[in-house]
Amino acid sequence: MKVYPECLPCFALQALRAANQSTHLDTLKWEILIEACKHISTFHPGMKPVEMAEVIYPLISQKTGVSDPFASLKHETNRQALALYPFFKALVMESKEPIKTALKLSIIGNSIDFGVPHNHLKDLKAETLATLHEPLAINNTGDFLNLLSHASSLLLLADNSGEIVLDRLLLETIHATFTHLVLFIGVREIPIINDVTLEDIKEVGFPPYIRAVSSGNRTPGVILKKSSREFLDLYNTSDIILSKGQGNYEGLSDDADQRVFFLFRAKCAIIAKHVGVREGAMIVKRGGKDDNY
Amino acid sequence: MKVYPECLPCFALQALRAANQSTHLDTLKWEILIEACKHISTFHPGMKPVEMAEVIYPLISQKTGVSDPFASLKHETNRQALALYPFFKALVMESKEPIKTALKLSIIGNSIDFGVPHNHLKDLKAETLATLHEPLAINNTGDFLNLLSHASSLLLLADNSGEIVLDRLLLETIHATFTHLVLFIGVREIPIINDVTLEDIKEVGFPPYIRAVSSGNRTPGVILKKSSREFLDLYNTSDIILSKGQGNYEGLSDDADQRVFFLFRAKCAIIAKHVGVREGAMIVKRGGKDDNY
Repeated sequence: MKVYPECLPCFALQALRAANQSTHLDTLKWEILIEACKHISTFHPGMKPVEMAEVIYPLISQKTGVSDPFASLKHETNRQALALYPFFKALVMESKEPIKTALKLSIIGNSIDFGVPHNHLKDLKAETLATLHEPLAINNTGDFLNLLSHASSLLLLADNSGEIVLDRLLLETIHATFTHLVLFIGVREIPIINDVTLEDIKEVGFPPYIRAVSSGNRTPGVILKKSSREFLDLYNTSDIILSKGQGNYEGLSDDADQRVFFLFRAKCAIIAKHVGVREGAMIVKRGGKDDNY
Repeated sequence: MKVYPECLPCFALQALRAANQSTHLDTLKWEILIEACKHISTFHPGMKPVEMAEVIYPLISQKTGVSDPFASLKHETNRQALALYPFFKALVMESKEPIKTALKLSIIGNSIDFGVPHNHLKDLKAETLATLHEPLAINNTGDFLNLLSHASSLLLLADNSGEIVLDRLLLETIHATFTHLVLFIGVREIPIINDVTLEDIKEVGFPPYIRAVSSGNRTPGVILKKSSREFLDLYNTSDIILSKGQGNYEGLSDDADQRVFFLFRAKCAIIAKHVGVREGAMIVKRGGKDDNY
């Protein structure tokens, strides 16, 4: 997905949010915002929105000395989501279509996000019960299930902390039926906003049959041309790719073929307009067809 | 009032809003936002927030050829507020304290604003009835009424279109009791956002005993060091100054003496924090004392 003019003020807002998370000093916040606007004024319309993070977040870390401003929030959301794991697990166990239910829960988990203007998560349990039966605005779940029955490997591209607990449940639920399937989870190379790294995978306790791999990306979304060689091999050879969240959509949507399914909640007006759904809508969107990008 | 780090992303958002109002072309919006961010990155912490408008709005007019993007919205709000004039007038006539009521209505009218992130105005009539008896968060109305009984001249610094109808009613109500008082209304030199110019005064039909004067300012708020000589003479010799809206507060608050009363609704989180009230609160705040600026 390309960057829109509307994204530019949002980048400045994201810089402010991360600055607020890193320092209480107005003088330092001022310096950060001035530098951020200087960087933003050099951006070009061919870039992907997530690429802004390569300059904005390191700038804030450099100015404040805080390398991971969202670290404690990440631990906290992982802890909260883990505490609800039995509740989510019960919903899947009680369901007549456990994989479909786990898929939906994984999208609901995408509501947890500190990088967007309105963090939709207030109470994950209440949010889950309120939205579990809400229809998907784009629903290629049938295609996914068809492909799944013939696949031998699946790669899930993770997005945020907290949400990762529901991704774990999704992969476990898929494994329960398709035990032969080789499962991978792709994470960020470094902490960026509240995105998942290898540390979160350990914290959340993934079972040994799910192998975690860094994508090599330093952006809050996978960008193939900036991914590691090892990750690209895995990406290119996986039978199914589940791409979680807006960041991965922004980074991958132009390159995605039909093995890719984008699972996310459209948390900003621009991405909602781009995809053609209302803001807040939930999506399972197959790559490489019927696209408006 | 000084500019805060939080104002910088808001300036970019204001540029986007004016760009959206002026053009449908994404390429042009992109150019505007890039240029706006370049300008913002040169701002210094000693400036007043309203000074940003001196560069941002002319940039948009120059790029799009639209000199007054909010012109039709201004006419429309003036028209809507004028249609409600009999309703507002009746509230004042029925009141036991007509000047106090007219003062409150004039502050409620300050909800009409296209320059702020959330335009509080949905339905001015409903808004009026809902907030007419809401207490003022800072209330120096008593001081104002005391001063009024000894004054011979009063200058009201106008803010927005639509709101100006309620300012007219306030001045008419004051005139009904203090017929000897010489009344002036100060407006912007040029159209900027939805701020009032001499054209709006004509459109809204001010009575002849209220003399309209341009402040000479090209910013959405009076800044004395940039005002015209004629206006400064008037400002310096007026016994009472009613300063309407956030923009005039941003421009004047550091220089205001006890003749000045700031009348506004705190429409952004930063100004609310600066003044020490909750966002959305209504204020009658005397200049030159108990200030935190």
